[in-house]
Amino acid sequence: MIAPATLADLPAFRIGHAQDAAAATGCTVIVAPAGASCGVAVRGGGPATRETDLLRPENMIEAVHAVVLAGGSAFGLEASCGVMDALAERGIGFQMAGACVPIVTGACLFDLLVGAPAHPDKAMGREAAERALADGYDGAAVAQGNVGAGTGATVGKLAAPEAAMKAGLGWSALRLGDLVVAALVAVNALGCVRDSQGRWVAGVVGPDGRVADPLEVLARGTAAQAGGEGGPVANTTLGVVLTNARLTKAHATKVASLAHDAYARAIKPVHTMNDGDTVFVFASGEVEAGADVVGVLGAEAMEQAILSAVMSAEGAYGLPAARDLA
Amino acid sequence: MIAPATLADLPAFRIGHAQDAAAATGCTVIVAPAGASCGVAVRGGGPATRETDLLRPENMIEAVHAVVLAGGSAFGLEASCGVMDALAERGIGFQMAGACVPIVTGACLFDLLVGAPAHPDKAMGREAAERALADGYDGAAVAQGNVGAGTGATVGKLAAPEAAMKAGLGWSALRLGDLVVAALVAVNALGCVRDSQGRWVAGVVGPDGRVADPLEVLARGTAAQAGGEGGPVANTTLGVVLTNARLTKAHATKVASLAHDAYARAIKPVHTMNDGDTVFVFASGEVEAGADVVGVLGAEAMEQAILSAVMSAEGAYGLPAARDLA
Repeated sequence: MIAPATLADLPAFRIGHAQDAAAATGCTVIVAPAGASCGVAVRGGGPATRETDLLRPENMIEAVHAVVLAGGSAFGLEASCGVMDALAERGIGFQMAGACVPIVTGACLFDLLVGAPAHPDKAMGREAAERALADGYDGAAVAQGNVGAGTGATVGKLAAPEAAMKAGLGWSALRLGDLVVAALVAVNALGCVRDSQGRWVAGVVGPDGRVADPLEVLARGTAAQAGGEGGPVANTTLGVVLTNARLTKAHATKVASLAHDAYARAIKPVHTMNDGDTVFVFASGEVEAGADVVGVLGAEAMEQAILSAVMSAEGAYGLPAARDLA
Repeated sequence: MIAPATLADLPAFRIGHAQDAAAATGCTVIVAPAGASCGVAVRGGGPATRETDLLRPENMIEAVHAVVLAGGSAFGLEASCGVMDALAERGIGFQMAGACVPIVTGACLFDLLVGAPAHPDKAMGREAAERALADGYDGAAVAQGNVGAGTGATVGKLAAPEAAMKAGLGWSALRLGDLVVAALVAVNALGCVRDSQGRWVAGVVGPDGRVADPLEVLARGTAAQAGGEGGPVANTTLGVVLTNARLTKAHATKVASLAHDAYARAIKPVHTMNDGDTVFVFASGEVEAGADVVGVLGAEAMEQAILSAVMSAEGAYGLPAARDLA
């Protein structure tokens, strides 16, 4: 029986957001204070990432301490530097004689053309990490919508910029016996988002005020330009699968690949040259489970999280959100 | 306007099937007599492939002469040897002084436990190549269903082997202006297949004689075993995107990755450790088009081809097909 769960069912992970709502950017930090196995799959054509090489199964690091999702395009990688400082001060990191080096991986999405051209910086990264580690943290209460890395996130940029919609950050969690698999995602896609019944709920707003079918937008030819290289449409959907499963780095990498199937199911088009779509997997290792089962549940949770991200978003920066069209 | 097309609209490619229906195995050969740009994306956990290293963008070969999809698990790679012979006799290949080396890449699917434990051999590969190159070839008439690499293909192996269904080979083609993008696929998946309305049309046959929701099968726990490593459930969906677009090897690789999104949309679960899911892209270079547009159309054609593969299949080897349940 697959049942709903919450992020509180994964006590090995602590999640914090920080944002600048006026500038339309922010970051979300997932901390594993004791370290956790981590994998990644980068499937977009324009990613911005850090510390992904050490995630390769053949490389040495076995425990990662934080995954940082941030706006600000590649400038947003700065937020991870503030996360490192916050973790190192608390003794969270890879211990080498007298040194403590927090292993902080992450990726950024492009929100520079929404709101002001600001980006998450060291102070914002530190703030998000400190919120994640604060007393009274409640995983079940992690905010969704226009928060953290989802603050400046938008969807439906296949056509004119003014036809796009506001999206945001969402999460979902599932349980199968002792196994808990959750997904957290900031949806900032070129394409349109559909629900599990196939209805388009966010994306390009058509002349009738409803979300257009992205293939029809493509066929009208606007997408032929928007989908070309070098256009101003820089996108990226950033996700993290969190689980209490015991996964090797290799299996975490495989689960990350499987979770991208949720992007394919809920977003169209996705994984284009103009998306930097990335999924991390963060596994704390308390429960024995096969990579396929974790991957299938991870894709399911991710699909729900994507929908939650767009349904939780509020209209902002001149763009409507899904709830405004209902 | 995206319009239907056929394989006859891609005259640079010639397709031939050969099979042993009694043994439930076969192969499908796509020949590009003048050579074509080729890329590949392998996303299943258990692939069987040949000549995929030379497809890497940094490697030398720029023109591939055939893609071979075959049953027989890794034994089926033998079919490509017969294809090489047939092409070399006709002077189709990479010319080096007096030598002519046909560049033949390909992948295999697992059908050894259906019918007799035979596999496509050199003679069968040659036969398929000769049919592809025969006078009177008509791309619009390329057969679908229990033919070629789809001869022994089945789906829905998440539960007991006797609950699986027969699948096969399908194709579809689309046109957008001068650009033609087609997909051909042999569907042999662990998971279940759904149509564009989300209805399960082939997969695990439930106690009520209908196709079960694969997540419910998973939750019943049978899949926890079936999805584990080392089980007898070896699967693989093999696809090829064919297009008249001009694509570099790098862009062909990207398009192959995008086409896997069709697998995610039409098959669940897919890309597991027990699938060797692979997509090749074969681009003949007559029409200028961006990788994203070709990729989006390729995914669309591939999704239709997957559905065509299961709807064209006929019940065989004790297993029903989708048309038997209607």
